[in-house]
Amino acid sequence: PTPATSARTPVNLAVIGGDGIGPEVVAEGLKVLDAITGPGTFATTRYDLGAARWQRTGEVLPDSVLGELAQADAILLGAVGAAPGATDVPSGLLERGLLLKLRFAFDHYVNLRPSRLYPGVPTPLAGDVLDRGEIDFLVVREGTEGLYCGNGGTVRTGTPHEIATEVSVNTAFGVERVVRDAFERATRRRNKITLLHKHNVLVNAGGLWRRLFESVAAEYPGVTTDYLHIDAAMIFLVTDPQRFDVIVTDNLFGDIVTDLAAAVTGGIGLAASGNINPDRTFPSMFEPVHGSAPDIAGQGIADPTATILSVGLLLEHLGFAEEAARVEKAAVADIAARRGQPRRSTSAVGDAIAAAV
Amino acid sequence: PTPATSARTPVNLAVIGGDGIGPEVVAEGLKVLDAITGPGTFATTRYDLGAARWQRTGEVLPDSVLGELAQADAILLGAVGAAPGATDVPSGLLERGLLLKLRFAFDHYVNLRPSRLYPGVPTPLAGDVLDRGEIDFLVVREGTEGLYCGNGGTVRTGTPHEIATEVSVNTAFGVERVVRDAFERATRRRNKITLLHKHNVLVNAGGLWRRLFESVAAEYPGVTTDYLHIDAAMIFLVTDPQRFDVIVTDNLFGDIVTDLAAAVTGGIGLAASGNINPDRTFPSMFEPVHGSAPDIAGQGIADPTATILSVGLLLEHLGFAEEAARVEKAAVADIAARRGQPRRSTSAVGDAIAAAV
Ligand SMILES: CC(C)[C@H](C(=O)O)[C@@H](O)C(=O)O
Ligand SMILES: CC(C)[C@H](C(=O)O)[C@@H](O)C(=O)O
Repeated sequence: PTPATSARTPVNLAVIGGDGIGPEVVAEGLKVLDAITGPGTFATTRYDLGAARWQRTGEVLPDSVLGELAQADAILLGAVGAAPGATDVPSGLLERGLLLKLRFAFDHYVNLRPSRLYPGVPTPLAGDVLDRGEIDFLVVREGTEGLYCGNGGTVRTGTPHEIATEVSVNTAFGVERVVRDAFERATRRRNKITLLHKHNVLVNAGGLWRRLFESVAAEYPGVTTDYLHIDAAMIFLVTDPQRFDVIVTDNLFGDIVTDLAAAVTGGIGLAASGNINPDRTFPSMFEPVHGSAPDIAGQGIADPTATILSVGLLLEHLGFAEEAARVEKAAVADIAARRGQPRRSTSAVGDAIAAAV
Repeated sequence: PTPATSARTPVNLAVIGGDGIGPEVVAEGLKVLDAITGPGTFATTRYDLGAARWQRTGEVLPDSVLGELAQADAILLGAVGAAPGATDVPSGLLERGLLLKLRFAFDHYVNLRPSRLYPGVPTPLAGDVLDRGEIDFLVVREGTEGLYCGNGGTVRTGTPHEIATEVSVNTAFGVERVVRDAFERATRRRNKITLLHKHNVLVNAGGLWRRLFESVAAEYPGVTTDYLHIDAAMIFLVTDPQRFDVIVTDNLFGDIVTDLAAAVTGGIGLAASGNINPDRTFPSMFEPVHGSAPDIAGQGIADPTATILSVGLLLEHLGFAEEAARVEKAAVADIAARRGQPRRSTSAVGDAIAAAV
């Protein structure tokens, strides 16, 4: 294969293990990456970021680190987040200051979240829902706009007359590019795309999304389009998830819908994601959807599958399509073999998938 | 019983049948209301509002009608909404101009949505989720603030440089009163309350909600409190819905969560709701969560159960507690007897429940 980045080997991979189970699952992701690409293809640089670093140094994301990360070809991130009891970490510090800062700084406007119910995976859905057919859809979540911008504030803070606002910002530029990306992906799948929004209430943002969705759709006559209000989508995700192929939606709706999608396809332990900059002006970042799970950290029992599948997305993004397919195939085979077996350790799962790729 | 409004009989009930199946299900709701309260207790006045009226007259909610509705003791609403193909009805016209206008004008700050999986009701959840216990929770959705305010707009509309904004407005006044109402309701249930928000990203609104939730909680030491991010709540709603007793959340999150809650408890065909003004400065409004379902309108096959259960909420709000309990009991018994039986007509269901109350 001639990957997009093959001209530049080694590929520079920035690795942020993070907190809790983050470093444990990332170790397995790298194990699989090494196994499939061989030594020397990727050069990894570790970055110590997350709650622990902040607690130690008071730094969340120093500018110098941001500058170094910007030079990488891609980023692999485990998870960041302090233990629930750690009251010293202010709400939003790591989310706004690290995760979202990276997504915004590196213009990750496509937040890619595949949802597939792999064979053998337990799901909370009843048999008659599952009997409708395979569940296999892709959520393209906008990653740089909407309510995630951080535009908002409080006045008369802490008084009985406090007002807190949050502003959802949606631009034609930002909406059109992610919608177009989603349509492109639909043509490589089953040619169906569903827009989720709430245009009957959020008439301004919803109107913009809908108009641009329709104008881009006109360029893709082979793609069937559908629209659902976000609330109605909740119902279909549990009663008829088979109706979805590509879903495109805004940042907050995408956050909500992808956790439900993960739940119906076996849980966030299996959910991979890519924060993608399709224009390659900055590195894309790949991470499991789950968090740092401090309650099970350090025990070697976390499931590294979501991270390994995220490595698959990373390989695909970098142009290693064949390797990406092999990672997914090996992970899927491993998942299928789990049913009824005793739970393996984090590293045993990584070993097995690394051996199988 | 000495209902709160018993001093004033007849109770003035404003009835808005609306569009599609709205008038059909409302007829059955009124049938049950008559059966339980006897003639003369309620005096109903019909209001012709909805898509059909707009299409005929160009009016959505004339001020004179709003003024008359304000004089009612309560409002029963079926559903409004044109057929999906009706391109002449602008997006949001009936939602913003009628439904939300009533909720805001009459200060319906408690949007009450009980979610109970009644015996015999099919659900999309798997047996092992159901085996965890009974599903019975109450969502208290804020109804007068958040992104529903309608604060927002567009600039450079229709150009490649359009910006569309939506502003979520949250006040200490508005948040505290709904949180307090939810705590009160928790004390009349299983003394557990869960706040849903996304305070790690929406730090301003989320901070306000969280602080007020905690300060009200201090007044209710007997109520166990919990917090979940809205995305994580999605997962628990399908894997462990039994963990919820009372949920309190903002307007948009509440909209999303209640459709999922309805789906897991048998569908929106059974989901009742009350738009409540607890201070009784204006009439409260009761409506099924489902829409006007134009595809099945006029065929006499719509399920009126959600409307009948909404009549139960109406009775309870007006102080007819015993009658409210009898309506719910009769509806639940009817639902339980449905399994395996042929589907009955709309009026047959209404007749059966009316006969049983
Ligand atoms: C941790 C949080 C900032 C993040 C988000 O809201 O995007 C997470 O929920 C996710 O989905 O990646
Ligand atoms: C029709 C719409 C305005 C409404 C809402 O968003 O509140 C509906 O979805 C509901 O839940 O009652």
